[in-house]
Amino acid sequence: MPLPSVSTQTVAEHNSRQSCWIIVHSKVYDVTDFLDEHPGGSKIILKYAGADATDAYDPIHPPDAITTNLPIEKHIGAVDPQTVVKVAKQVTEEDRRRQAMLDARPPLDEIINLHDLEAVAKAVLPPKAWAYYSSGGDDEITIRENRASFQRVWFRPRVLRDVSRVDWSTTILGQKSSMPVYISATALGKLGHPDGELNLTRAAGKHGVIQMIPTLASCSFDEIIDAAQPGQPQFLQLYVNRDREITRRYVQHAQKRGVKALFITVDAPQLGRREKDMRMKAVDDNGTAKVQDGQSDVKKDQGVSRAISSFIDPSLSWKDIPWFRSITTMPIILKGVATPEDALMAYDAGVQGIVLSNHGGRQLDTSFSGLENLPPIIAALKTRGPWPNPNFSVFVDGGVRRASDVLKALALGATAVGVGRAFMYAFCAYGQEGVEKAFQLLNDEFEMNMRLIGARNLSEIVPEMVDASALHSRVGLSPPDNLYLNTYQPLSTAQLKNKL
Amino acid sequence: MPLPSVSTQTVAEHNSRQSCWIIVHSKVYDVTDFLDEHPGGSKIILKYAGADATDAYDPIHPPDAITTNLPIEKHIGAVDPQTVVKVAKQVTEEDRRRQAMLDARPPLDEIINLHDLEAVAKAVLPPKAWAYYSSGGDDEITIRENRASFQRVWFRPRVLRDVSRVDWSTTILGQKSSMPVYISATALGKLGHPDGELNLTRAAGKHGVIQMIPTLASCSFDEIIDAAQPGQPQFLQLYVNRDREITRRYVQHAQKRGVKALFITVDAPQLGRREKDMRMKAVDDNGTAKVQDGQSDVKKDQGVSRAISSFIDPSLSWKDIPWFRSITTMPIILKGVATPEDALMAYDAGVQGIVLSNHGGRQLDTSFSGLENLPPIIAALKTRGPWPNPNFSVFVDGGVRRASDVLKALALGATAVGVGRAFMYAFCAYGQEGVEKAFQLLNDEFEMNMRLIGARNLSEIVPEMVDASALHSRVGLSPPDNLYLNTYQPLSTAQLKNKL
Amino acid sequence: MPLPSVSTQTVAEHNSRQSCWIIVHSKVYDVTDFLDEHPGGSKIILKYAGADATDAYDPIHPPDAITTNLPIEKHIGAVDPQTVVKVAKQVTEEDRRRQAMLDARPPLDEIINLHDLEAVAKAVLPPKAWAYYSSGGDDEITIRENRASFQRVWFRPRVLRDVSRVDWSTTILGQKSSMPVYISATALGKLGHPDGELNLTRAAGKHGVIQMIPTLASCSFDEIIDAAQPGQPQFLQLYVNRDREITRRYVQHAQKRGVKALFITVDAPQLGRREKDMRMKAVDDNGTAKVQDGQSDVKKDQGVSRAISSFIDPSLSWKDIPWFRSITTMPIILKGVATPEDALMAYDAGVQGIVLSNHGGRQLDTSFSGLENLPPIIAALKTRGPWPNPNFSVFVDGGVRRASDVLKALALGATAVGVGRAFMYAFCAYGQEGVEKAFQLLNDEFEMNMRLIGARNLSEIVPEMVDASALHSRVGLSPPDNLYLNTYQPLSTAQLKNKL
Amino acid sequence: MPLPSVSTQTVAEHNSRQSCWIIVHSKVYDVTDFLDEHPGGSKIILKYAGADATDAYDPIHPPDAITTNLPIEKHIGAVDPQTVVKVAKQVTEEDRRRQAMLDARPPLDEIINLHDLEAVAKAVLPPKAWAYYSSGGDDEITIRENRASFQRVWFRPRVLRDVSRVDWSTTILGQKSSMPVYISATALGKLGHPDGELNLTRAAGKHGVIQMIPTLASCSFDEIIDAAQPGQPQFLQLYVNRDREITRRYVQHAQKRGVKALFITVDAPQLGRREKDMRMKAVDDNGTAKVQDGQSDVKKDQGVSRAISSFIDPSLSWKDIPWFRSITTMPIILKGVATPEDALMAYDAGVQGIVLSNHGGRQLDTSFSGLENLPPIIAALKTRGPWPNPNFSVFVDGGVRRASDVLKALALGATAVGVGRAFMYAFCAYGQEGVEKAFQLLNDEFEMNMRLIGARNLSEIVPEMVDASALHSRVGLSPPDNLYLNTYQPLSTAQLKNKL
Repeated sequence: MPLPSVSTQTVAEHNSRQSCWIIVHSKVYDVTDFLDEHPGGSKIILKYAGADATDAYDPIHPPDAITTNLPIEKHIGAVDPQTVVKVAKQVTEEDRRRQAMLDARPPLDEIINLHDLEAVAKAVLPPKAWAYYSSGGDDEITIRENRASFQRVWFRPRVLRDVSRVDWSTTILGQKSSMPVYISATALGKLGHPDGELNLTRAAGKHGVIQMIPTLASCSFDEIIDAAQPGQPQFLQLYVNRDREITRRYVQHAQKRGVKALFITVDAPQLGRREKDMRMKAVDDNGTAKVQDGQSDVKKDQGVSRAISSFIDPSLSWKDIPWFRSITTMPIILKGVATPEDALMAYDAGVQGIVLSNHGGRQLDTSFSGLENLPPIIAALKTRGPWPNPNFSVFVDGGVRRASDVLKALALGATAVGVGRAFMYAFCAYGQEGVEKAFQLLNDEFEMNMRLIGARNLSEIVPEMVDASALHSRVGLSPPDNLYLNTYQPLSTAQLKNKL
Repeated sequence: MPLPSVSTQTVAEHNSRQSCWIIVHSKVYDVTDFLDEHPGGSKIILKYAGADATDAYDPIHPPDAITTNLPIEKHIGAVDPQTVVKVAKQVTEEDRRRQAMLDARPPLDEIINLHDLEAVAKAVLPPKAWAYYSSGGDDEITIRENRASFQRVWFRPRVLRDVSRVDWSTTILGQKSSMPVYISATALGKLGHPDGELNLTRAAGKHGVIQMIPTLASCSFDEIIDAAQPGQPQFLQLYVNRDREITRRYVQHAQKRGVKALFITVDAPQLGRREKDMRMKAVDDNGTAKVQDGQSDVKKDQGVSRAISSFIDPSLSWKDIPWFRSITTMPIILKGVATPEDALMAYDAGVQGIVLSNHGGRQLDTSFSGLENLPPIIAALKTRGPWPNPNFSVFVDGGVRRASDVLKALALGATAVGVGRAFMYAFCAYGQEGVEKAFQLLNDEFEMNMRLIGARNLSEIVPEMVDASALHSRVGLSPPDNLYLNTYQPLSTAQLKNKL
Repeated sequence: MPLPSVSTQTVAEHNSRQSCWIIVHSKVYDVTDFLDEHPGGSKIILKYAGADATDAYDPIHPPDAITTNLPIEKHIGAVDPQTVVKVAKQVTEEDRRRQAMLDARPPLDEIINLHDLEAVAKAVLPPKAWAYYSSGGDDEITIRENRASFQRVWFRPRVLRDVSRVDWSTTILGQKSSMPVYISATALGKLGHPDGELNLTRAAGKHGVIQMIPTLASCSFDEIIDAAQPGQPQFLQLYVNRDREITRRYVQHAQKRGVKALFITVDAPQLGRREKDMRMKAVDDNGTAKVQDGQSDVKKDQGVSRAISSFIDPSLSWKDIPWFRSITTMPIILKGVATPEDALMAYDAGVQGIVLSNHGGRQLDTSFSGLENLPPIIAALKTRGPWPNPNFSVFVDGGVRRASDVLKALALGATAVGVGRAFMYAFCAYGQEGVEKAFQLLNDEFEMNMRLIGARNLSEIVPEMVDASALHSRVGLSPPDNLYLNTYQPLSTAQLKNKL
Repeated sequence: MPLPSVSTQTVAEHNSRQSCWIIVHSKVYDVTDFLDEHPGGSKIILKYAGADATDAYDPIHPPDAITTNLPIEKHIGAVDPQTVVKVAKQVTEEDRRRQAMLDARPPLDEIINLHDLEAVAKAVLPPKAWAYYSSGGDDEITIRENRASFQRVWFRPRVLRDVSRVDWSTTILGQKSSMPVYISATALGKLGHPDGELNLTRAAGKHGVIQMIPTLASCSFDEIIDAAQPGQPQFLQLYVNRDREITRRYVQHAQKRGVKALFITVDAPQLGRREKDMRMKAVDDNGTAKVQDGQSDVKKDQGVSRAISSFIDPSLSWKDIPWFRSITTMPIILKGVATPEDALMAYDAGVQGIVLSNHGGRQLDTSFSGLENLPPIIAALKTRGPWPNPNFSVFVDGGVRRASDVLKALALGATAVGVGRAFMYAFCAYGQEGVEKAFQLLNDEFEMNMRLIGARNLSEIVPEMVDASALHSRVGLSPPDNLYLNTYQPLSTAQLKNKL
C-alpha cells in the first residue's frame, strides 16, 4: 500500500513538543511520543521539528533505526516531492576547515605507524566526532593507563635462533586469522567516514582479519554481513536489550547469517560519563536557539539517563547466561571482565571465553587495564586446569598500537587481542585503504618483533620472553616542589656562537 | 538606652594608634586597646582609623564579632547620619574585571564536574579570596597529595549483578543523609559570595545533605541555624577557645539550637603558614601608605601570632576530653587525627569518632592524606573489635572531587566523607544553585559508579572492590637529566602537508 | 686491460628501470639487475639513473662496495672525460645553513662534556644524517632507557684514602687500553664527516684507545686498518652474511691484517624500524619527482626487507658458533646478548665473551638496557665459577656519556664499556680533534671520579661502591590529573617590584 | 722599612708571561713564577699583567692571600700615587642591570621563606657569582636530590598535646644554639656582597646561631673572628694543605682564637666538575682578547688541576687522624662521610662526629643525599652503643630550606643540621638583615612545626614522628610515549564564554 503523500508545509506545522514531525530519507514520522525516549535526548530532535532531519540522523543511526523503533502508526507518509524546496547546502567554516585538512593529508607512504593514522584522523574529523571517539570516562585515567600499561612490560629477547621464517597466523574461536588480532567493536562509524563500518569489513576480508560487528554500528547489521566475502568470519558484539525478545531475534538472526561468536558486553549496565563528549554537547546545546518547551536542564539529563536504561538492560546478571546458551549455539564470550572472581564465574558458567576490557576506558575510571588484569586472571584460571585451555579463550583489548603490544599480551597468556579505535581512526583518515595500511604496518611489525625476540611462531611466545614485574608497579608521584623549580636553573649544553 | 550620636568629624580625629576609632554598620567603636589583639594584625584596622570600615569588615567577620569581642564601654555610639558624606563607591579595575568574569560564566548546563565549579570560582573570585581559599601550608605538598592519593586507589569492578536499582543513601551519626558525604566546615564564606555559608544551608536542606557549621563562618551561628529547614540536621565544627567559658556557652547554645554532633578541631593549635595567602597580604600591606606608628615588621608578625594564640588554645589536650563530655550530650568527633596511635587514644577516650584530615592541606605540610592514613587506622581500630563499629565513626576529608573518591574511602572502611572547598567554590561561582548543581553531579556520579562497580547499596561497597596496593607507594623521582633532554629529539607523528 | 670509454650521452640513455646505468667515481656501471637487491631500495638508485651518483654514493658506501657487489660483466667502462659537462655545484639552502652552523661552532675550549659534542653535531649535521644516527627502534623507549638506567645506580663513595695517584688503564681481551672504554662500531661515518671512521682510528691511536671496526663503515676495512699506528689494537664488528664464504674471507682477511677480536652481532637478524629515519626517507621520497616505473609502495617496502635479508643472515644460530671457531683464532665475542639464559649458552659454547647491548636502542624496543641486564647475568655466570673470569669478558654498551657511567658498570661486574654514538658525534662536530677532546674529557672525569669514590685503580672498583637497588625499579606513572592541574595554581617565589 | 715606590709606568712594562707584575691594594707584586700555581689558572692573572688587579682580586681572595702565598722577595713595592691615573670606572651594561635589580628588590616584609631569598639573590647576583654559588657536580643530580630527599620523608603528627610552649634550642658540640641549625661553610662570600662572610658572623652573634668559618672565605680568618661578639661560638672548616705545617699553624691559631670545633673536609681530594661554573669561565675566557703566550687549552686545564693539587692534599687518609688529634684539643668532625663503613671507621678513630654531606652536591654526582644516608648510618652506629651518643655527633647538610626539613633529620637521629647556601643567598640579597630575616623565618617555622607535630622540645622529636619508608624509594621513570602524547588531548575544565 503506497504511503500517503504529505507536503512540507504540513510537516512544518508540527514543529513543537506538543506535535513533532520530522522527515528522514523523504519519509515523514510523528515522533512526539518518542521525544522522551530518545537516547540522545529530546532537544536534538526538537531542533528539527517540522523539518528534514536526514543529515543529522544518518551518521548516528543505522538506516533502519527509526522504522524499527517507531510503531507503524507513527509512519505518517512520504514527502510530496513537489513541495520540497531545494536549499543549496550552506558551506560552513568547519566544512572548509575539514576539506582543507583532507587535502593536506600526507600520502599513505608517509604513514609509518598506527599513531600516524590517529594523528591524521584527529586533524580531519569534525570536532564532535573526535570528541565522541576519543573520549574516555571521568578523568580519563583508565584510557591512558590502557596504553601506558603495555610499556611497563619489557621483552627478554633470545638470540641466535634461526628466524629466517616467522609465522604469526593463528586460530581465534575456531576461525583462521592472519594475525593474533581481531577488530573490536566501536560505535557510530559514519561520524568519521560515509562508508562507516563497511571499511573494516572490506579490509578485513582482504587481509584475513576477523571483524566484530557492533550493536551500535552506523551501518545496519545486514549491510555489514553482506559486505563480507564468502567464508569471511565475523563476530557480533551485543548490548542486551531490556526487551529480551528483541535480543533473542537479533542473536538468532546473526547466527543464521553466519556469525561465528557472540561477545556480550557486561561492563556497561549504564553508559560512562565521557566528559569530552559531554562538554561538546553541552556547549553546542547552549549555543543553539532556545527550544520552545519549558523543559529544565535537570530534567533533560534525567531523560537521557532514563532513555538509555530503556535500551541497555542494567538488570543483566549471571542468571541470564543459561538463557543465552539456550537461544544460540555460537560460542559466548563475556566482554568486560576485570577480576579473577568474575573470570572464574564465567568459566564455571560454561561460556567459551572472556575479554579483559574496560570498554576502551569509556566506562569506570581508575579501573585497571586489561593487560594488568591478565596475569592474576590467568593464574586464577590455572586452578581450573592447564593453560592454555582449548575450551576457554581469554582476550585483551584497550590501548594496543604496536604488534609488540600484542606479543606481550600473548606471552602473558592471552589468546588474541582486540583493536578498536586504531582501525576506526584508520578509516576516518583514509577509508578502507587506511585500514589495509594498518594491517600492513602490524604485519611488518609482527615480522620484525618475532625475529628480534627469537620466536618462529606464536607457540614460541612464552612467559619467559617478557618481564612484567613492573606491570602492577604503577605509582603516583609526590607533587613537585614549585618553589625549588622556581629558582633551580637547568643545565644546558654548549651554545652555538650566533645564539649568544 | 539610645546610643549617643557621634559626628564623622569627631570619629576622624581618632585616626592614630594612640586613639583609634572605627565605624562598622553605622556604629562607632574605640578599638585602640584591641589593636594588638586583632587576629588579622593592627595594620589592617589602622587603615580605617577614623573612618568607616564596614566594607572591609563584612566579608571576614560574623555580624556580631565586634560586639562580642569588644567590651561594652568601647561601644562609643551611633554615627550622626547628618554628618555622613555619601561617597559614590569607586569602581576599581578589579571590580570591572570581576563583573566581566561573572558575566562570562558558562551556563550551569555546561558544568559537568566539580572541577568546573572550581575553575569558574577561580575566575570570578577576588584574587585575595582565591588566595585565602585555595592556599595550603608551606610547599603545598600535602594539599596536592590529598587529591593525588585517591588516584592511587583503583577499582576492582564486578559484573553481571542486577544493578537496575542502586541506592547510596546512608546514616551519619544517626542522621539520615542522601549521600555518604557531608559538607565540611570552611571559613569566611562571604569573601566569595554575599550570602556566604547560607548558600550551603539552603542547598543542603533541599537535597538532604548535612552541613557542618564552621566556627569561623562569615555568617553568625544563629543565622545559619535559622536558615535550615525544620528537621534538617546540622553539625558544628569547633575551635576551642583559650577561655573555656566561651567555648562552653557556644557548645551548649549549639546543642540547644539542635545541632547533632560536635567536631572538635585538633590539628590547629597554631594556624599553618599558607604562603599564597601570606604573599598576597605582604604585597598588599607594603603597597598601602605607611601607617603612622613605628611598629616594626617583626613586631607585627609576632602580634598576629600572639593574637591567634589568644583565641585558639594551643594547650588543648587529651585531658580536656572528659570536660567536653561533661558539657554536652552531642556525639563528639575529633577532627584532624592522623595516626593509629591517636585513633586508639580517641577510641579509648570514649568519643564517637574521628576525622582523618589534614585540615585541607592548610596546616602541617608533608603530612599524609586522610585516605592514606585510613587503612592503618582501620587496622588499628579492628584490634578493639569488629569493623564497622556502630559506636565509632571514621570520616575522611581532603581532596574529594568525584563520587568515585567517596566510594574508594568507603571501601577502605570510612563511614562517610567530608567535602569542603568543592561546595564552597560551587557557591562562589553560582550561589545556592551552584551547590545544588554540585549535589546533582555527585548523585549522577554515584549512580553510575555504583552500577559500574556492581554495588546495589553501600553495604555492598567492600574492601575487595578496590586495589589500594599503591596507596602508600608514592615515590620521588630522580631529578631529570637536562643535558640529555637538551639533545634528545622527541618522536612526532606524521605531519599534514600544509604544516611542512 | 683498459676499460672501454663511454660518453655521458650514452650513459644518459640508460635512465630507466629497464636499463639503468650510473656513474660512480668516473666509472660506469649497469645496475639494472641489482635494483631489487639494493638494501636502500631501488628508488634512490633510479633517481640517478643515467647520471653521476658519486655524491650520493660516497657517504653511505665504502669505496669498494660497488665493485665487490656487482659482477665484473656489469662494469661497463670509464666515462669519457671529454663528455663530462662540469656543473657548478648548486649551493642549496641546506648547504648554507650547514656552513653557517659550522662557522658558529663554539671553540673546543667551551666543550666541557660529551653532551656538548652531541649538541654541536646535532646543529651541524644534515637532517638526514642526524635522523639516521640518532634514531632508535619504534617508540624509542629503549634508546632513552639506555641513558636513564645509569642514573638509577648511585655511588657509595669512600673517604680518607690516599688518592694522590689514580690509574684507570686496563687490559681488554689481552690488549692494553688507556681507559676501560672501547670505541663501539657505528655505521656510515661519512654522513657526518668526510674522513668518516678514520677520525676514530687516528684519535684512538694517539690516545691508546681500542677501536671496533664496523662492517658497515663508510671507509673500507683496509683504509681503516692502514690508518692505524704500528701496534695499535683494533677489533672487528661482524654482520654475518647469508653467503658464509664472503664472511669467511672477510674474517680471515681481518685476522691476517692483525685484528685482535671478533664481535659477532647477534641482535639484528632483521634491522629494526627506526621511525625518525623512516619518516625522513618517506617524506623525501614523496617529495621527489615520480620515478618512471609502476612499482607500488607496498612492493618497495617488501623490496627493502628482502634486500636486507639477502645480506644479513636471519638464520644465524648457535649451530654456527663451532664454524666460527674453526675459521679464526681471534677471540669471539657475541654482541647483543640480553638474558642470563643466552649468556650461559654463550659461555658453554666456548666463546670469549659477550656484549650486553640492545644495538644502541635501534632494534627491539622495550628491551632492557645492557646495564640493567648486567647484575642478573653476572649472577648467572657466577654459577660457572668465580667472577671476574679471566677467560670470559662481559662488556656493556648503550647510553654512556660520563666516566662515572663506566665506573658503575665496572663496579657491577663489567670488563669494559663500549661507547659508539658519543665518539661519532665528536668527529661529526670537530673531526679527529673532537674525538681527542672526548677522550680528554673522559680522562678528566675518570681522574676526578676515581678520587671522589676512593678507588686508586680499577681493581678497587668493587660492587660495594654502588647502590643498584633502584636499577630494576623503573616504574610507570599514573597518568596526570589534567582537570586538577587546570585549576591548581603553583606557588611562586617573591617577585621583584618592576615585575609586578 | 718602607717599601720602595714604583711608578705605574714601570709596572706596565711587566705585562707578559715572561715578567708579570700586578697591583693589588696599591702594592706591586711580581707573580711571574706563581702563574702556573694559581688555582684559578694563569689566564685570569695575565689579563691584569702590568695593571691594577684589585677589583678582580678582592671578591675571591682574603685580603692576606697574596702576602701569605707570595715569597717576601716578590713584594716589589708600593705604587707611586703620583703616577696613578684615576680612571672613571666604566659603568657596564651588567652594572646597570645589577643596580636595577637591587633597586627592584621586594621589601623584607614580602620575604616569607628561604626560597624567596634565593630568588632575590639569583636576580641581583652577577651571573658569574650565581654560576659559582649555584652550580653542582656533573649533571647536578645530587644537588637536586639533596632538596628532593626531604620531601620523601613525611610527618606522623600527634594531636592533643599541650603545645602552648615549644622550645627548639639545643646544644651543638657543647655550645648553646638557639636552633638545631648551624651555618655551614661556603666559599668566596664577597662575590655576592662587599661584607662577605661578616654578614653571617654579625647575624649569628645577634641570634645565637653558630657559624662555621670556611677555609676559602673572602674575608680573612681573623676578620671573621674579630667580628664575633664576646662568647659567640664559632667552628672552623678545614681543607688540609699538602704542606701540613701550614695546616698545623692554621688549626692552632684557630684554637688560640677560641674556635670551638674543627670540621675537616674529607670529600674533596679533588674539586668536582661544576659545569655551570666551567661553562661561564670557558665562554668568558674565549671571549677575552688572546693572551700573549702560546699556552694551549689542554695545558691550561692541567695547570688548574695541578695548582689545586698543590693546595688541597689528595693523599689525606685515615692515617692522618692521630696527627690531628695531636695538634689540637678541639673536637674533630669529619665532613663528607657517606657510608656506614666510613662512619664506623670515624667512630673507631676517636673523632667526635661526622657530617653526612656531599659538599652541597658540588663533588661526586649521583651520590646520595646526607638525609638518605642517615638511617643506615645511625643503624650502624647503634652497633657501637645506644643512640643518641653524647660523645659522637652526626650532622647532616645539603638542601635544607625549611625548619620541617631540620625536624625530619632530627627525628631520624641527626644531632643538628648545617645550612650553607640559603644563608649565603640571604646576605647576597639583603646583607646582614637578610641573614637575620632567614633566622626569623626558620624560628617561625620551628614554632609552627613543633606545635603541629606535637613536640614541645627536641627530645620529643622521635623516630615515630616521621615515615621515611619512601626515602630510599627514589625511582626512575620509563621514558614517556611521545607519539601517544602527540595525539592525546588533555581534558580541560569549563571555559568562560569570552574565551570561546
